[in-house]
Amino acid sequence: MFNKYDIIVVGAGHAGCEAAAAAANLGSRVLLITMNMGTIAQMSCNPAMGGVAKGQIVREVDALGGYSGIISDKTTLQFRMLNSSKGPAMWSPRAQIDRMRFAEEWRLMLEQTPNVDFWQDTVVGLLTNDGKVTGVKTSLGIEIACEAVVLTNGTFLNGQIHIGEKRFGGGRTGEKAATGITEQLVEMGFEAGRMKTGTPPRVDGRSLDYGKMEEQWGDEIQGRFSYTDFELPKDQRCCWITYTNSEVHETLKEGFEQSPMFTGRIKGLGPRYCPSIEDKINRFAERDRHQIFVEPEGWNTVEIYVNGFSTSLPEDVQYRALTKIPGFEKAKMFRPGYAIEYDFFPPTQLKLSLETKKLNNLYFAGQINGTTGYEEAACQGLIAGINAHQKINQKEDLILKRSESYIGVLIDDLVTKGTEEPYRMFTSRAEHRLLLRQDNADIRLSPIGHALGLISDDRLKKVDAKIENADTIVSYLKSTSINPEKVNAALEAAGTPTISQSVKMFQLITRPQITFENIRGSDQSFDEMLSGFDLETIEQAEIKVKYESYFEKELEIVEKMKRMEDHIINSEFNYLNLVSLSKEAREKLMKIKPRTLGQASRISGVSPSDISVLMVHMGR
Amino acid sequence: MFNKYDIIVVGAGHAGCEAAAAAANLGSRVLLITMNMGTIAQMSCNPAMGGVAKGQIVREVDALGGYSGIISDKTTLQFRMLNSSKGPAMWSPRAQIDRMRFAEEWRLMLEQTPNVDFWQDTVVGLLTNDGKVTGVKTSLGIEIACEAVVLTNGTFLNGQIHIGEKRFGGGRTGEKAATGITEQLVEMGFEAGRMKTGTPPRVDGRSLDYGKMEEQWGDEIQGRFSYTDFELPKDQRCCWITYTNSEVHETLKEGFEQSPMFTGRIKGLGPRYCPSIEDKINRFAERDRHQIFVEPEGWNTVEIYVNGFSTSLPEDVQYRALTKIPGFEKAKMFRPGYAIEYDFFPPTQLKLSLETKKLNNLYFAGQINGTTGYEEAACQGLIAGINAHQKINQKEDLILKRSESYIGVLIDDLVTKGTEEPYRMFTSRAEHRLLLRQDNADIRLSPIGHALGLISDDRLKKVDAKIENADTIVSYLKSTSINPEKVNAALEAAGTPTISQSVKMFQLITRPQITFENIRGSDQSFDEMLSGFDLETIEQAEIKVKYESYFEKELEIVEKMKRMEDHIINSEFNYLNLVSLSKEAREKLMKIKPRTLGQASRISGVSPSDISVLMVHMGR
Ligand SMILES: Cc1cc2nc3c(=O)[nH]c(=O)nc-3n(C[C@H](O)[C@H](O)[C@H](O)COP(=O)(O)OP(=O)(O)OC[C@H]3O[C@@H](n4cnc5c(N)ncnc54)[C@H](O)[C@@H]3O)c2cc1C
Ligand SMILES: Cc1cc2nc3c(=O)[nH]c(=O)nc-3n(C[C@H](O)[C@H](O)[C@H](O)COP(=O)(O)OP(=O)(O)OC[C@H]3O[C@@H](n4cnc5c(N)ncnc54)[C@H](O)[C@@H]3O)c2cc1C
Repeated sequence: MFNKYDIIVVGAGHAGCEAAAAAANLGSRVLLITMNMGTIAQMSCNPAMGGVAKGQIVREVDALGGYSGIISDKTTLQFRMLNSSKGPAMWSPRAQIDRMRFAEEWRLMLEQTPNVDFWQDTVVGLLTNDGKVTGVKTSLGIEIACEAVVLTNGTFLNGQIHIGEKRFGGGRTGEKAATGITEQLVEMGFEAGRMKTGTPPRVDGRSLDYGKMEEQWGDEIQGRFSYTDFELPKDQRCCWITYTNSEVHETLKEGFEQSPMFTGRIKGLGPRYCPSIEDKINRFAERDRHQIFVEPEGWNTVEIYVNGFSTSLPEDVQYRALTKIPGFEKAKMFRPGYAIEYDFFPPTQLKLSLETKKLNNLYFAGQINGTTGYEEAACQGLIAGINAHQKINQKEDLILKRSESYIGVLIDDLVTKGTEEPYRMFTSRAEHRLLLRQDNADIRLSPIGHALGLISDDRLKKVDAKIENADTIVSYLKSTSINPEKVNAALEAAGTPTISQSVKMFQLITRPQITFENIRGSDQSFDEMLSGFDLETIEQAEIKVKYESYFEKELEIVEKMKRMEDHIINSEFNYLNLVSLSKEAREKLMKIKPRTLGQASRISGVSPSDISVLMVHMGR
Repeated sequence: MFNKYDIIVVGAGHAGCEAAAAAANLGSRVLLITMNMGTIAQMSCNPAMGGVAKGQIVREVDALGGYSGIISDKTTLQFRMLNSSKGPAMWSPRAQIDRMRFAEEWRLMLEQTPNVDFWQDTVVGLLTNDGKVTGVKTSLGIEIACEAVVLTNGTFLNGQIHIGEKRFGGGRTGEKAATGITEQLVEMGFEAGRMKTGTPPRVDGRSLDYGKMEEQWGDEIQGRFSYTDFELPKDQRCCWITYTNSEVHETLKEGFEQSPMFTGRIKGLGPRYCPSIEDKINRFAERDRHQIFVEPEGWNTVEIYVNGFSTSLPEDVQYRALTKIPGFEKAKMFRPGYAIEYDFFPPTQLKLSLETKKLNNLYFAGQINGTTGYEEAACQGLIAGINAHQKINQKEDLILKRSESYIGVLIDDLVTKGTEEPYRMFTSRAEHRLLLRQDNADIRLSPIGHALGLISDDRLKKVDAKIENADTIVSYLKSTSINPEKVNAALEAAGTPTISQSVKMFQLITRPQITFENIRGSDQSFDEMLSGFDLETIEQAEIKVKYESYFEKELEIVEKMKRMEDHIINSEFNYLNLVSLSKEAREKLMKIKPRTLGQASRISGVSPSDISVLMVHMGR
């Protein structure tokens, strides 16, 4: 009934969709198997993409030829560049998304991707032969053969939903859980664990009093995730902010005795940085209020997402507490919040390519690797899809460096250190975050995407032009002087000392108070020069002028580490023979099998002196 | 957590959505509880509305103030007036629908209906007190009080899905079944049975060769279901027709041994008039081909619905047989067809208001009453919603007559005769079908909708104007003569004898070969007169002219039956005392408790002589 496929992707969440698209666009024949074709690319939790560090990931996915950025842009309700008052390494795009449109758009994009076939069914096991995965088996009893499998089961594996003392099986509310896969993998020797995550209640927007909340509008000039060109939705929608208070907290506490988390009924660890409201009250007892973001779920629906109020307390407690939040006095709930516990596979069982160490040609991506978040899932899917294709075509793995992408940081962290709690990206995880900015993801990664075949010549040319044009602007500034009469008014307005004789424009722009925008209108030829370039290019030039010295220092550090990062260790290397290593180091190194000396140095339990031993032994 | 509601509607399928909207628009506070807010108004099977007799029902629903017509019109891919070459009683509107848009539009319309609240949950039981339903209990353990409940569980009650020899629980593929309600009702003394229905596989439109199929376009002038005014989608999409052949049939037969129907694993009866392909092959062994309609599922999706190929044979047999259909040689399947078995409640347990006889204020609507089809479900939902509202406000039940609507026929059939197999509407079920046309549903029913409060004054005025204007046109034709020079060319062109002296235009139009369209252009004042009216009015006038004598005869028959239909029987009447009735009649009459003598006369087992006995006894 099915011919053999190159690659089977199991699950059509954010990871699975990117994996299928990437592998197919590279030329593999892909079958995407998912439990319900009506829920492709469902956002299980908040209707939003991006945010701090996560927004950078979406831009990286886009720069490599993934779809998440394009789809987010097409379905954006409201766009904001977070942290725009801080340095550019912190600028983080975030968009409120129309949930239904997002899922629909993903499905349509996949349908328009020629090599992707679809099959609605549940995968219950893998076919294997001689240490290699050779296909999947479905709940209909169908066996489908392939060269490689990408597993992206999200929160569905033995999913258990908790609301107060109630507990029932499910992958999300109203959806079935998936069984069989964990059991089979554990039998093969894989390690599996439990994690949990949660979601807030949804309410009826018609029942809220927005007059009691603060309005929050999107950016005036709407930004975007994707580096490609297409028209963005014309309008933006308003969100609101309100706050909990001690009355809300007291009400919530009434349910603590029935909380599945506090009573220990939930064993899995939850995301520390995305805590439930009961967690927040518990851990930050000194705070008498927490922020609540009131976010629409779509252009037309009245359903509202109560961001910041994730909870698995009994639904009546949720309800009573909600109604004590200003603006929520008459709130009507559509569905209660809940927590979900699910199986994950500690990611130290993976190679940096996301292939499992135990079973050849099997890749894991997304929430099953212990991460949380759509962006984290999407980027893993992209890499797993690419690498599955590369592997079956005897091509080199794509392994992104920590110094060139958040994606590299994420995968290296997971594989090298593992994770005890749902892993979420932060800028602080990236030691070279100064270089990993949202403004230059295309410059960093599109050449790689192009070499793979995911980025067209045209797109690469656009990137090259951006680099070149930004340099042109910088050269102009370095070579062009401006005189006091022209610019002093602008300087004064910006609160920075005036000049008494002509200076190079470059010099002015390096002043922290001064931006291109401040100078615009002071000098006609400057204005004319800028008018020849698009916003992204101008932004790039400005960032270069203002921060180049920092970037150069950072690059020097990267260069210094390069020797370690580039030093590939033979994957068969037997650390047990190296008695001068500490016992812990030997064990950890045998387990992780680091790909490079750099990776080895990041394994917890491997000390600098262990690394010296390795370097000496390996002839450095 | 919940205040007491007026009415709780369980299930948001076609019946539930109409019930909620109607009750809310009448002023009741309604809670719509459904298992998954992502699947509101899902079309479980074919993406189409209307068709023979069913299209008339959709127009009736619209004429009474229901939403199905409006939503269908807004999401139509292709519209055709079926049977337009036959008499106007057979004209039947049918639209191919965008499945995703339809569900979305329903949800948005309900969200914009002020009195409808939503709750995502599964109802597992009813609360009762003293022979009356007083609320529901959900799977979260929540009890919600109300005055009346409308149950519309569709195919979900103890749903069992079959594909070949495989069988699993579910309400539709990928969705959970619902349990608890049947068991509780049976315990209370309700009778429950099993029925089954089926759906065809879905395929990838990119894998079909349309060159080998016949194109089927929509009508040039796009019609509509709704009598209200708004803009229709601009374009229409093409469908295709192809045929099975003996090779397809032979392949399907290979799976007969594993067929859940032929092996007796499915106990429930399926819809005889909507048979599976294996049924067709079996029952019509002499036919060497069956028509297959190849229908897109939406504007943009590549998913294709294979209408006419419903099957529960093993999926590999489905697949192999499919690929032998011309144009399907390279077909890729998205999901296999399947059959589903579910609980229903024999509808003789209902009053004509759709309230159950056993439990006060409990209403049943849709598939659980043993019907099949969205239209059949929608109209029951509308009536149940209306009557639940009427009851709790001590107002009169809405009981539509067989002579005024298909809806009346449907409910009277169900309640009076019950049904052994899934009940579907046909024109032949309506003895007065000449009167129950798609063109006059507004004239028949909008005054009733207006009296209830579901149809606005403006809408009623429009109906009155349509009647009046149609009469104006008819009067014009009756009073205006046309002379031979003007019209003979047109008559000749239409293949009907020319005239030698002026005749009344009315006389010409009564000729079977002549339509308004034929005469247009022959006489300027006629053209000018028509140009003052809209299409619906002109159509109405033309139908009146051509068929008025038939209608009058039909009305006379209705008038004759009126005595019986209007003769209300006391619901406490004890037939057991009337020994001159046959034993069977006594039992059936006690069970059905007919509302009128007319209804009594339609009960199978009640003979004309039994009716005479009743008439004598009741003093006629
Ligand atoms: C209740 C809830 C709350 C969450 N809260 C947050 C939050 O607060 N912050 C945050 O960042 N993230 C949150 N998330 C996580 C976020 O939704 C996930 O990180 C993200 O969706 C993971 O993407 P994924 O592709 O790995 O899996 P998913 O999006 O879960 O997709 C998995 C897909 O696989 C399919 N599938 C599963 N098993 C099978 C099988 N055996 N056969 C076929 N198909 C299968 C499913 O149908 C689904 O399509 C939450 C998730 C849930 C469920
Ligand atoms: C596989 C299949 C094939 C079909 N084939 C045909 C066909 O060929 N021709 C045809 O005319 N018709 C067909 N139908 C029937 C058509 O889909 C139904 O007649 C129509 O959808 C019935 O509408 P409904 O409102 O009664 O129920 P449904 O549309 O089934 O809706 C039921 C709703 O109730 C909800 N629900 C159920 N139980 C609970 C509960 N306990 N608590 C809360 N919510 C609940 C469900 O989530 C759903 O929203 C088919 C249906 C199926 C499933």
